[in-house]
Amino acid sequence: MNGAESLVHTLLGSGVEVCFTNPGTSEMHFVAALDRIPGMRCILGLQENIVTGAADGYWRMAEKPACTLLHCGPGLANGLANLHNARRARSGIVNITGDQAVYHRPFDAPLTADTEGWARGVSAFVRTSTRAEDVGVDAAVAVQAARTSPGQIATLILPSDSSWNEGGVVGQALPVPAVPQADPHAVRQAARVLREKRNVLILLGGLGLREGAQREAHRIAAATGAKLMCEGSNARIQRGRGRLPLERVPYVVDQATEVLKSVEHLILVNAKAPVGFFGYPGKPSQLYPPAAEVHVLTRYEQDAEQALAALAEELGAPKAAIPDPGPRPEAARGALSPEGLAQTVAALMPEGAVVVDETVTYGRGFFPYTHAAPPHDWLQNCGGAIGYGPSAATGAAVAIGPARRVIGLQADGSAMYTVQALWTQAREKLPVTTVLLSNRKYQILIGEYRNVGANPGRTAMDMLDLGNPDIGWVQLANSMGVEAARAETLERCADLMAQSFARPGPFLIELMI
Amino acid sequence: MNGAESLVHTLLGSGVEVCFTNPGTSEMHFVAALDRIPGMRCILGLQENIVTGAADGYWRMAEKPACTLLHCGPGLANGLANLHNARRARSGIVNITGDQAVYHRPFDAPLTADTEGWARGVSAFVRTSTRAEDVGVDAAVAVQAARTSPGQIATLILPSDSSWNEGGVVGQALPVPAVPQADPHAVRQAARVLREKRNVLILLGGLGLREGAQREAHRIAAATGAKLMCEGSNARIQRGRGRLPLERVPYVVDQATEVLKSVEHLILVNAKAPVGFFGYPGKPSQLYPPAAEVHVLTRYEQDAEQALAALAEELGAPKAAIPDPGPRPEAARGALSPEGLAQTVAALMPEGAVVVDETVTYGRGFFPYTHAAPPHDWLQNCGGAIGYGPSAATGAAVAIGPARRVIGLQADGSAMYTVQALWTQAREKLPVTTVLLSNRKYQILIGEYRNVGANPGRTAMDMLDLGNPDIGWVQLANSMGVEAARAETLERCADLMAQSFARPGPFLIELMI
Repeated sequence: MNGAESLVHTLLGSGVEVCFTNPGTSEMHFVAALDRIPGMRCILGLQENIVTGAADGYWRMAEKPACTLLHCGPGLANGLANLHNARRARSGIVNITGDQAVYHRPFDAPLTADTEGWARGVSAFVRTSTRAEDVGVDAAVAVQAARTSPGQIATLILPSDSSWNEGGVVGQALPVPAVPQADPHAVRQAARVLREKRNVLILLGGLGLREGAQREAHRIAAATGAKLMCEGSNARIQRGRGRLPLERVPYVVDQATEVLKSVEHLILVNAKAPVGFFGYPGKPSQLYPPAAEVHVLTRYEQDAEQALAALAEELGAPKAAIPDPGPRPEAARGALSPEGLAQTVAALMPEGAVVVDETVTYGRGFFPYTHAAPPHDWLQNCGGAIGYGPSAATGAAVAIGPARRVIGLQADGSAMYTVQALWTQAREKLPVTTVLLSNRKYQILIGEYRNVGANPGRTAMDMLDLGNPDIGWVQLANSMGVEAARAETLERCADLMAQSFARPGPFLIELMI
Repeated sequence: MNGAESLVHTLLGSGVEVCFTNPGTSEMHFVAALDRIPGMRCILGLQENIVTGAADGYWRMAEKPACTLLHCGPGLANGLANLHNARRARSGIVNITGDQAVYHRPFDAPLTADTEGWARGVSAFVRTSTRAEDVGVDAAVAVQAARTSPGQIATLILPSDSSWNEGGVVGQALPVPAVPQADPHAVRQAARVLREKRNVLILLGGLGLREGAQREAHRIAAATGAKLMCEGSNARIQRGRGRLPLERVPYVVDQATEVLKSVEHLILVNAKAPVGFFGYPGKPSQLYPPAAEVHVLTRYEQDAEQALAALAEELGAPKAAIPDPGPRPEAARGALSPEGLAQTVAALMPEGAVVVDETVTYGRGFFPYTHAAPPHDWLQNCGGAIGYGPSAATGAAVAIGPARRVIGLQADGSAMYTVQALWTQAREKLPVTTVLLSNRKYQILIGEYRNVGANPGRTAMDMLDLGNPDIGWVQLANSMGVEAARAETLERCADLMAQSFARPGPFLIELMI
């Protein structure tokens, strides 16, 4: 058995079933091993930021890691931005990065690069397997690292001779470490705050946004009057009927500080105390009042549901049903608006839909209009590197299978970063409806530019405007095998959405906002 | 004057006239300064690997650096693969990478990343300007570093408060260090080898491939019988009538060792002793005979033309005209073939054309058929990270202006990596004709797979094949504002090529190979 074969057997034995990939010469023995040994679903992306972003989306819905197969340092580099987003979302991913043969590396051939150096900025685990004998056990450790709560990025670098040499040994699957429980002292401290203090905000993040944790959080809020919110960007919120109508901390600093101005105590549940996405002259970095006290109930890796249940017990909080959100909205009619689009999505989405949200500016207010939708998952960009949406939608669709639907709410400027994902959606016939919000500009930056104190002139608009030429999204999607149509009204958008939900495979709606 | 304004003034004063960019929030004060201060041509790319690859192509033809404007660590990461290629091509680039305000960085906001760490793998110079007062002088040093022979990548990281704070000071343009001359001892040693030894190969690279250096190299070869070749991948070769009919070291290891098998002495002129792109089981890393002696006439940064002239004088070599290459080829007819395409390009290219070659497998034999073309420049991918072509073609076209033409000979798999470059070509109305070689597969990898010893099965082909769905290149180009047409014969390809050369703006020919 060569090293590559030991790697495939180890990955399969450790529960890794999907490989998102763009291989190169140095990975050919691994490709050959995948060909010989059945069991791994191999999905090609036409650029590595598709590959890594798909692995991120896959983890969020599958709750287990996919592996990626990347070609040398530059192949990894192409996928770093979505690995950055995945790290911020606390997704588990096993990167297999091929590289020069150990003996060939000193010759500094053209593709030689500092693969380990580039991997470190996104990875909790980086290891180079320099011998075929080590590949299996190194891979088992990498999978274990990826599956360690809350999810981590593990990068295994595989020189080509470690892959082709004989002597491979299958690594035994290692146990997934238990999710750590909250410190009982932290539970008692939170209970004390909730009993004795006013203006308490419980901020939910990460594993605190799953249905079970939400139920316990609601019990606590109902008993104590504490407020519940979620972070500004969230890897996965279970939303809709039967889940909490949580609001996000606003992106805009002035709005966030206004919403949070009366908070005196902040209890963090797998969340981070809110800070601005950027610093701005004369504005604070922290979005909550400087005098507020911050209490950590659970860290990112800890069991939020258990901690919230313990806290509810400590408070003697009675069971409390999450209130009915009222009737499901009807599809909106007439001129396009963010509210109308959100209502339409809420009206039409199939139960169990996965919304992949990279709306940037247009979707900031979508949440209030979608609380009364059927149960669904909502995924956001946690790292701020644009181009997460098309890739994550691709991976999420692989994870959920053809019986459910992904709805990509997608800004145009961001979509252009990873537009190649459409091809993978077509090839794999994935159930993805992309609502492409075509405003032909980087709207967020035009807003930010005005904050600088001026209207953009010709040179600035050359950097902020996506028109001249306008991108033809229907043609672009068609060129990669994805059916598409344009909508200029909410009625037309609703029609296209409903049609796309009724059939298999991807569809793109170019919505002229 | 704020830091951003001092930066713009310093760049302009140091001779930087073009900014390839995809800005973000943390760069808005720099964008505003570019808007207020005239003189910089700002060119938007829709993903950062377009931006950095364009800066590479620009340097190769303009022989001076452009700057890039990138958004935080992830924006830099998106451009790393083409910076890797640029580093291998020894191109000079000044990266301006915006980042979190210094005081905001400790809050670890979503886009915070190890920007310096990612920059180091490609940069000869990395500096973070932490005060507005330092930005100007830091930028002047960065430009000097970029312009230091043979060309280097300089990355200046600009926290947003260094940009918006007052106190900026314009940095005085620093002198470009002189190109170092060869060691006279190295010249005498090379002369001794050429006088006394047989089977001498002079390998030309980098600055040794400019017209003046070629003339001196020819004089030496004519006088001594030494053979001349160029490296396998070259940043820029001046080719065609009046230049040397140089052949490249072949990519395929067996072919290269065959071509080089009789070499006993290797004289390097701004070149590296040939090594394989990758290691392969049972094949050598070095492509020249183990017993061959290697002599360095000039290092990458040294003046090749001066060294070769000194060597010719030392040898008493008489002036020698480069021989006429024979008649210009005529456009080929009939079925498509690499040779036919090469002949057609040679027959039709306008004088002074710039060929940006990312043909991967299809173009390996193009050189012999294009020696008798009019004088032109030929640019290749020196780093092996695919996706160099569309970006470099964009930047080269900016450098040469509308009176000359870029011809992109472009493999389809590689083109998909940076397909967004077509939009920039349309927006800037750049004189680029892309001949898109559509074979709907990663042909190089199918060959490499067979070297592993098997024909690819279904799973392997899922990773090597670009069909299912076929990419519609005419639609794809049109969707981004680039006119395009399909050709299935050499005649049709020639017609389209000739038409495109006669008009301004970009054009894409989808050639069904």
